Amino acid sequence: MLQVKSATAALALLEEEIKPLQKEPMILPLTAALGQIAAADILCGEVIPPFDRCTVDGYALRARDSFGAGEGLPARLRLKGCVEMGSLPDFSLKAGESAYVPTGGCLPAGADAVVMLEYSEDIGDGYVYLYKAAAPGNHLIFAGEDAQPHEVLIQRYQKIKSHHVGLLAAAGIAELPVLPPVRVGIISSGDELVDIETEPKGAQIRDVNSYLISALLEEAGATAHRYGIMADNAENLLRLSTSALTECDMLLLSGGSSVGQQDHSQWVLKNLPDSRLLLHGLAVKPGKPTLLAMAGGKPVFGLPGHPLSAYFICHIFVRYALRLLQGQSVEPPHTVTATLTNNYPSNAGREEYLPLALSQGPEGWLARPIFNKSGLISLLKQAGGYTRIGREEEGLAKGQKIEVEVF
Amino acid sequence: MLQVKSATAALALLEEEIKPLQKEPMILPLTAALGQIAAADILCGEVIPPFDRCTVDGYALRARDSFGAGEGLPARLRLKGCVEMGSLPDFSLKAGESAYVPTGGCLPAGADAVVMLEYSEDIGDGYVYLYKAAAPGNHLIFAGEDAQPHEVLIQRYQKIKSHHVGLLAAAGIAELPVLPPVRVGIISSGDELVDIETEPKGAQIRDVNSYLISALLEEAGATAHRYGIMADNAENLLRLSTSALTECDMLLLSGGSSVGQQDHSQWVLKNLPDSRLLLHGLAVKPGKPTLLAMAGGKPVFGLPGHPLSAYFICHIFVRYALRLLQGQSVEPPHTVTATLTNNYPSNAGREEYLPLALSQGPEGWLARPIFNKSGLISLLKQAGGYTRIGREEEGLAKGQKIEVEVF
Repeated sequence: MLQVKSATAALALLEEEIKPLQKEPMILPLTAALGQIAAADILCGEVIPPFDRCTVDGYALRARDSFGAGEGLPARLRLKGCVEMGSLPDFSLKAGESAYVPTGGCLPAGADAVVMLEYSEDIGDGYVYLYKAAAPGNHLIFAGEDAQPHEVLIQRYQKIKSHHVGLLAAAGIAELPVLPPVRVGIISSGDELVDIETEPKGAQIRDVNSYLISALLEEAGATAHRYGIMADNAENLLRLSTSALTECDMLLLSGGSSVGQQDHSQWVLKNLPDSRLLLHGLAVKPGKPTLLAMAGGKPVFGLPGHPLSAYFICHIFVRYALRLLQGQSVEPPHTVTATLTNNYPSNAGREEYLPLALSQGPEGWLARPIFNKSGLISLLKQAGGYTRIGREEEGLAKGQKIEVEVF
Repeated sequence: MLQVKSATAALALLEEEIKPLQKEPMILPLTAALGQIAAADILCGEVIPPFDRCTVDGYALRARDSFGAGEGLPARLRLKGCVEMGSLPDFSLKAGESAYVPTGGCLPAGADAVVMLEYSEDIGDGYVYLYKAAAPGNHLIFAGEDAQPHEVLIQRYQKIKSHHVGLLAAAGIAELPVLPPVRVGIISSGDELVDIETEPKGAQIRDVNSYLISALLEEAGATAHRYGIMADNAENLLRLSTSALTECDMLLLSGGSSVGQQDHSQWVLKNLPDSRLLLHGLAVKPGKPTLLAMAGGKPVFGLPGHPLSAYFICHIFVRYALRLLQGQSVEPPHTVTATLTNNYPSNAGREEYLPLALSQGPEGWLARPIFNKSGLISLLKQAGGYTRIGREEEGLAKGQKIEVEVF
């Protein structure tokens, strides 16, 4: 039953198991909604624009009055008036009449087109001369052409980006319901770990992973809660994990990479209340010793101990789980196309994540494989991103164009 | 002198004019530094790792004692002890001796290699049998191999991403100096504008641009300050702009698109204290009516009035200016490679930014050109990103692979 799964199978498993969180939405002002997830379809409440709106500086008219006009033969229309920005015109246009309208101004009733200022002449004789014919609809937006009441502006579970903020502002939506952030707990365990503020003694090392992973989760829009460092004791770890799960929507155990520590993580994942251990090893490099359980409907990951491995697993799998909890559809990853500077051999059989150093060459981005030695944290200094090498591929060739996922 | 400039010339102009801000750095705890810009080179203060560290579960030994060992002929070494995680071993290894070390444990003095547990046998006779030869350095990181004191971990002006947080945690850097956020002022002007909370009357419309642009600036890590909506009066606009510039590092004027409004913006940019108007029009589509001045050494943009035009100008040019103020080198843009679903003709002569709707096809991302009508805000709903069509290109062909810059 329990076996090492491929990356694809693991993602499918997450998709099958994880349902969007059902939490009470928060109502936020538009100015605080950036980066949040919409908790409901956001509907337009109005007709946008509310009036026929001119999109250039020019002369409004009935289009048919300009038919036949051209450079040599202007249409001569009686100048009825001038529309003020922000005001409704107090006149309408009849056949043979025209009025000046600035960009953004309201067309007078009767007008159905605009001729741009560049093609007009006003010699002060009470008429305007238009040297171009207009078709109905030229240089204007009809009332309601942009949006109608009840039209969905933002879909439920959509992430609010800056251009959406503009769209919502246009519809006068000054506040909106968003999902509360997903709360992710992180428990570090290991007898050798000390917090970053503490000077390591003897063979102690600092707890890198919980800081690394918290930052990644924060970047992805979640709230990370570090529960601190536990001694490597399975019973205590189980007790803390159980209580953390009552407060969090997802839990990450960051243990070590040793057999003993792995055994503890596995035992905890099996013994959490209402838990099913679903994944025991991933056919990826690095990151093989990854565990996954669903406990009371919440995902619990056992992460590999090496920082770089833990980072890749979080970047690819934990962030995927996060999106599923947020109900989000898949978004385009942050990638850049780059030219590989060196050959890179890879063992077929498991998907490999190759860290890359990025630099700008004369003809675009260059990606240099970082030949890594397991456990080196300084890789995080050089790496600007990574590429995925499929399990059937045998490596990458120098000069090849690759898609780099940017950190 | 003043003329319409190409996109490339405008970016070069920004690069020439804008110097990194010289502000007092803020000291932030590591947990708050994500997304900030380092204000100085951050140096490592320690030897990392501080001891020869084992990267697998296995047996430490002097490599030469295993030479010649293999599947049929194990090396037989006296089992000297077992290293506890987090503790310094209280023994050393001599010729013919070995000791068990867990992943992350400290190698005993005298050892220079590790043989993995998988290739060992301990039958309880006081010896361990190793079925594989090891070379010096196998499965361990030497003390200091990861980082040395005075080594630069993060360069000045580098943006702190999640993997950098891990790197800094490893070095015990619990706080660091970062640049204060760039403060950008936004002044909206137009007699037709009302705030989003206000019900527009007559031919009024809501102030979309200042919300749209604030959100974009916030996404880019700046602090946006909206100065509210001004009536379209050049003198008053100049007064407010002058005072805003004393508080901000960059100023954006979001006026309308009409000739009158454009003239006001231009007059203000010319008459700001110590101001040089540098750009009067950009050869791009959309976004032509863009203005740029340097006033007292600070960039001041006059943005086009149409929301989509203003958004593109900010995405490409204002964000570029922001990076220069932050001293940052160019980062890979957020792009995705997609297949174009339709032909798109383009007029050569100016760089064009084509908004695209993104969707996932069976073989990757698909990009559909949004045939846009000037001034429609609903484009912001459909568009997931855009592509740049160079001024010499004549359009894009259906089926073509393009780089999409994701919003």
